[in-house]
Formats: sequence, C-alpha cells, structure tokens
Amino acid sequence: MIRTAMKDKTMVPHLTTALTGPLLDLERRFLENETTVERWLRKQWLEHTPPFYASVDLRNAGFKLAPVDTNLFPGGFNNLNADFLPLCVQATMVAIEKICPDAKSVLLIPENHTRNQFYLMNVARLSVILRHAGLNVRIGSLLPEITAPTPIDLPDGQQLVLEPLQRIDNGRRLGLKDFDPCAVLLNNDLSAGVPEILRNVHDQFVIPPLWAGWHVRRKSAHFAAYRDVALSFASELGIDPWLIDPGFEVCGEVNFHERTGEECLAVNVDTLLNRMRVKYKEYGIEAEPFVIVKADAGTYGMGIMTVKDASEVKQLNRKQRNKMSVVKEGLQVTEVIIQEGVPTVERVNEDTAEPVVYMIDRYVVGGFYRVNSARGIDENLNAPGMRFEPLAFSTGCSLPDARLDPDAPANRFYAYGVVARLALLAASLELERAAPAETA
Amino acid sequence: MIRTAMKDKTMVPHLTTALTGPLLDLERRFLENETTVERWLRKQWLEHTPPFYASVDLRNAGFKLAPVDTNLFPGGFNNLNADFLPLCVQATMVAIEKICPDAKSVLLIPENHTRNQFYLMNVARLSVILRHAGLNVRIGSLLPEITAPTPIDLPDGQQLVLEPLQRIDNGRRLGLKDFDPCAVLLNNDLSAGVPEILRNVHDQFVIPPLWAGWHVRRKSAHFAAYRDVALSFASELGIDPWLIDPGFEVCGEVNFHERTGEECLAVNVDTLLNRMRVKYKEYGIEAEPFVIVKADAGTYGMGIMTVKDASEVKQLNRKQRNKMSVVKEGLQVTEVIIQEGVPTVERVNEDTAEPVVYMIDRYVVGGFYRVNSARGIDENLNAPGMRFEPLAFSTGCSLPDARLDPDAPANRFYAYGVVARLALLAASLELERAAPAETA
Repeated sequence: MIRTAMKDKTMVPHLTTALTGPLLDLERRFLENETTVERWLRKQWLEHTPPFYASVDLRNAGFKLAPVDTNLFPGGFNNLNADFLPLCVQATMVAIEKICPDAKSVLLIPENHTRNQFYLMNVARLSVILRHAGLNVRIGSLLPEITAPTPIDLPDGQQLVLEPLQRIDNGRRLGLKDFDPCAVLLNNDLSAGVPEILRNVHDQFVIPPLWAGWHVRRKSAHFAAYRDVALSFASELGIDPWLIDPGFEVCGEVNFHERTGEECLAVNVDTLLNRMRVKYKEYGIEAEPFVIVKADAGTYGMGIMTVKDASEVKQLNRKQRNKMSVVKEGLQVTEVIIQEGVPTVERVNEDTAEPVVYMIDRYVVGGFYRVNSARGIDENLNAPGMRFEPLAFSTGCSLPDARLDPDAPANRFYAYGVVARLALLAASLELERAAPAETA
Repeated sequence: MIRTAMKDKTMVPHLTTALTGPLLDLERRFLENETTVERWLRKQWLEHTPPFYASVDLRNAGFKLAPVDTNLFPGGFNNLNADFLPLCVQATMVAIEKICPDAKSVLLIPENHTRNQFYLMNVARLSVILRHAGLNVRIGSLLPEITAPTPIDLPDGQQLVLEPLQRIDNGRRLGLKDFDPCAVLLNNDLSAGVPEILRNVHDQFVIPPLWAGWHVRRKSAHFAAYRDVALSFASELGIDPWLIDPGFEVCGEVNFHERTGEECLAVNVDTLLNRMRVKYKEYGIEAEPFVIVKADAGTYGMGIMTVKDASEVKQLNRKQRNKMSVVKEGLQVTEVIIQEGVPTVERVNEDTAEPVVYMIDRYVVGGFYRVNSARGIDENLNAPGMRFEPLAFSTGCSLPDARLDPDAPANRFYAYGVVARLALLAASLELERAAPAETA
C-alpha cells in the first residue's frame, strides 16, 4: 500500500496545512477501529439497501470532517483515477446481481446537457463501466429534438449515441426501438419534475427510484437521516457526533423576490451560529463560524451564499436576491436550508480544494479533489464559470495503513471513505422514508 | 484503460510470439461477446456458490487456452500487483457478507511451512486483505511446536504471529486463547488428511469445506466438472469446447515401485495422444502432442512427467519411478491423471512463462506470470529449486478494450480471467458433487 501511495507523487495533492488538531484524533480513531467501522457498516447494510450509486462532497476542516452534499445521480465518473476502474466494474457487478441478475440490458437516461462535453464524458464512462459489468447499455434521451439515433463525438475520440426514449410493451415499459431493458438507470436528477414518459412504468426497475429526484428530495431530509446515522456511528466509536455531523436549520416558505421569510432565515442563521460558537469554544477553534444558505432542493452550485451574521440575510440587494431565488431549470426557491459551514483545509498546491467520494452499491470506488483557485475556504467550490480542476485520488479508500501517519494519503482517503459511506447510509434511510406508501 | 495498460511498460510481459492462429479468434470471440460471457457467468452464480478463493494455472498455446490446475487454497497473494489490492478487499467484503455478515473475527489456518518466507508473505497479505475487509484476523497453527503466540519477522519488515490452534466452547468450535472466530479460513490444502483438531467442528463456518482438501480432492473430478462447464459455455458462444478444455484420462491403481498399472497408463497415454493428433490435424497444428502424467491428488509440482509416447511410461528407470511415486508429505501416488499437454507460448523476455489467475468469491482480483528459465514450453513450471520469478499482471482482467488488438495485455488478461472463472465454476460444481450427504 505504501508503494501504491508513493508511486505517483504527482497525483498526491500537496497539503499545505499540517493538521495537528482534533481531526488527526478522528482519523486515528477510524484507523484504530477499522474492524469496528467496517463491521458496523456491514451490519447496517443488512437492514438497508444502498442506492445504486452516489457521490458525496466532503469538507475537512481539520477539526471536523463532514459531508455537505450527497448526489444520487452522480456525474464526474470520468474524473476518477482510471486505475480504479476495475473497482467500479466489480462493484457494479455486485449491484446488478441484486437488481436483475438475469439481465443483459440496461437503459441509461442522462441529463439533457448535450453540449457539456465533460458531462458526456461521464455518461461515456458510466457506459463503459456497465458494459464491462456485463450489460448491453444504450442511452435514452429525454430531449424532444432527439428523434433518431444521434451520434456525438467526444474529445477523447469516443462516441456516444443518444436515442429517442419511448414507451414499449403497450406503454408499460421504457425502452428504445428494438431495445427492451431490464433496468433503467437514471443519471438525471429530475430537478424539473418527472417527465410524463417516465411515469407509471411497470415491471421494470428504475434506479435510483423516481423519489430520489430533486423534484421531491430535500437536503434537510438527507441531513436529518445523516444526523441519525452519525449519532449511532459516533456512539459505536465513542466520539462526539459533532465531529462528523454538520448542523442545519430549515425555512420552508421563503420568497427572495417578495422578501418574505427573511425573519425565519435570520433567526435560524443566528441559532445555528450560536450553536457553532459553543462547539468552537469547546474545541478551542479560533475561526469565525459561518453558515451556508442554499436551496433545500438540488442546486448545481446555484443559489448558494456564505453568511457570517444574521443581518446579512436581511440586507440582500436585488442582485443577490435574484441569484438566490432560482436554481437549475429556472425553478423558484421557496425552501431553504441553513447548513453549518465547514471550512476546508485541503489545498492542491495553493488552491482551495474539497474531496468528492464516489460509491457504487456499498463500495467506495474512488474520488477526486474539486479544486477552485478563485474561491476561499468558506465558499462553495462547485461554482459555474470558475476553473474547475478535478484531481483524482492517488490511492484507494480501502487500504489504510496504521504504520503511516493518520494524515498520510491512504489514511486520509480511508477517513473520507468512511464518512462518505455514512452519508450513503443516510441516503438509504432518506429514500426509505420518502418511498411512496404502495412501495413500502 | 489504454493508459493503465501503457503506463508501466516494465510490467507488461514481452511476448516474443506473435499470435495469429485460432487463439486470436478465441480472444476476439470473448471480446465481441463480453456481455454474453458476463451474463452467462452471472446466471451460473445464481445456481452455484463460488469457493471463497482460488487460483488457476492457465496454459496459452496460441491455438488453445486452458486451465491445467485449480488451487482452492491459493498461496501467492503476495505476488499480485499491489495496485489491485482494493479489488481483493472489495471482493472479500462481498464474500464475507454471505458467510457471516455479523462477524468480526476470522481464524486463518496456514500451511506448516514456517521457514518458507515467500509463503509467509502470502499469509501476511491474506491477513491484510481480511483486515481491510473489516475482520479481526488471527493465525492458528497446526504445528505441535507452536505452544504459545510466536512472532515471525518477514523480509519486508512485517511480522506474523502464529498461535496454537485449540478447541474451545467445550470442544465444539475452533479458536485460540480468548478468540472465538465466526469463520475459519483454511490456507492449508490438507494433503496429509484432516488433522484431528479440525474434525467435527460445530456452529462455525470452515471455508473452503474440508472436502476441498487434497486428501479427498481429485484433479480428475475437477476436470470432469470443467468439461461440463466448457461444453455449456462453448455452446453459448458457438465455439469448439476443445479450444478451452484439456482432455484427460485416469488410472486408478498405479504403483510405480511395483510397476503395476503401467498397462493402464500406456493405453491411456496412447488414447489421449491419438485424440490430440486428430484435433491437431483439424486445426493444422504442426507441434508434436504431449501429455502430462501426474498424481490425481495435489502435487506441489512433484510427481509430474511429460510424455510424448506410450512406450515412455513402460521404460521408467528407478530414479524416475521414485520421483513419480511420492508427492507432498511423502504420500504414495496410486491414482494418476493423464492430462493433455498444453504448450505455453507466453514468454517473459526469453523465459518460459504461464499465467496464474487469482479469484476471491466470483471476482478476478489479479494474476501473475510464473516464469521459469530452466524449463521448456512443454514442461511443468511449478518446479522446486528452479528460479521462480512471478511477474504481476500490469492491468486488471475486467477491462478488455475492443479498440485494441485481441492480444493486447488488457484483452489477453480478460481472456485469461474468463477461462479462469470457468475453472472456478468447475470447482464449485466439483465441491457440490463431493459434499458429504448430510451437508447436501
């Protein structure tokens, strides 16, 4: 494992911050209790079904390591270290065996970003993974302009073919011309709601389920489930759950244009900042606490602001209010989550970075650093228009080495993989709780 | 995938033989039918349980690709490419979930080779894999001289602790002092029979089962099961099963000292060579056919001879008869398998080489080349005293790339992984057939 970590030094992010505070303690605790951690997770998966796939944005503050966003329709598989592709294939084999072992075909439904080459590279990578797991993969597009198979050339010489999605089998199932898949894999987060063509599908697996889409999903429901997971896990390990759990509050009826709900925002910002100040004092943390105000449904990095004082949410100018009021697909924001800000100590060279961990089934299959040179340690890095430079993890997340320092890459990645899997488990709970009655 | 294959050229064996005959066809067939291959295997594993682990020695003749030996107690995990350790860990997690998901402890019982540092490195590597999969691992020794925990230093600085195996829980279970494991993992092939201490274990998983040991296992039973697997798989793919299946015959009562059973050997050698000549003619193969005569139970590379004419088994001198008559632990050979010889075209630099593929649960987790500069292409390479230089596969076995030539490393390794998994499936059938009535 050491050799793996050392082999390709260029891949190991240069961490300019030498961590010596509580996080090292936390990482050491994970390391020393690897068997307990893995067994605890294994037991949870006896009771809960992991989502087919997920990515988790983490923030490592030095004093705290917490998930800040969990994506159930992950893009960015193309950013993973290609050396770990076999891990993706193997995990997908495990997932497929549970869903439709007898299957040979899967239909992938991507986002409608046909001009985003990076996103299309992700779709291509997903197709490769599914194909190597032993499935015929074809891509069904929701775009009305795709009326016939449409080849798209990718920068690396690959080609994707988008085909018009259709209902088949007397309208009971989803498919393509001459293609009746066993399962439909969504890589589309349904921000704008469930398109008519995806409704009332029978006798076919749709994964993740439709209620994982951002038209119904709420970050606050995820982090409520995460709180339960963190409490139980922290109790198993004998740690303070705060070290892995970002606090949050919710305002359900905000209208940034009409300036309604501002009082709720201000009160909750204040409440959360006060709770944080108590904890910062307890742990001797000098930094100034901040919270992140963002839409409670999916954001794509839109509609996000950093707030250090309640007064800020009352003094928004027109531009700020416009920015906060819409997210992807022009949807209006009315439900808002106020989440504890977790600064990032991770640096790649001099630039602010945060780890993103990818999972298929219950397995960590890789990760990368989201790097943004134009943003500070207390800002959202998933910012459109900024230079975005993913840097793949150099080693896997499953090979901690107790002989190395807790913050050696292999050990740090293990800690990231543990917290990411806690968020994965929270997503599983969240989906169980959100499932329509007839499916429960 | 291309990048992975190209990254480290030193790891890619230099193949001096340019393959253009039927094997390229076979590899191309696997490539073109990857989905069919994977789905067929997936369906088999719905009906059959894979062994916990296995390694398979393959022979690639250019015109034929076949397993020649399947080890259900594999050593040599230390020879795998360390980059693929995460694959081993993930596959072990899958295996453990099926055996004892709630478990946190496993007892590993190794061979009694306490002075073989290479073997002990394998035990250490297995321990690392199991620990990262979330299990407390301790090592129970069958050696009578191990009466207290005995640390052993390894060349790479690691340390193993061998502890005296004991019966616990009123003799019902196997364990160590203060250690009551959920499962017992055998890395000991039981050539000398089942030691008293391993008999009549209750309420505890012993994996592989005791009847996988060489005290009862027969190569001929494995290759009979393999023949069934190869027939079914070849029919699915529309290929001649001979391309992947090594023929064999058996003589049940041979005594090399007393020169009984020689007639049976001669007749069967003749029969097999004649069958091979017909096939060689059909495929236009110029080489002279040969067969391998070896003990039908485990050999450890002992008691093996290459024969090109039936007369050779009748003219054995005393030295040759002595060599053939005993195998590991001084056991007498009475049952003999005559197996179709499959020459190897694989070369590492100028030296004769053969691939060995490792699997955990149903997943290929790596492999290496067994290289022997002192042996010819028609000889056993697992020869004690010879220079033995394993060379780890540079890429995984799960990422064939149809854009590359069929004999590109990634594609060749895929073909090797497919045939190795057929042998794994044969082992599964073999163990089902061999299971004592009360466990069936």
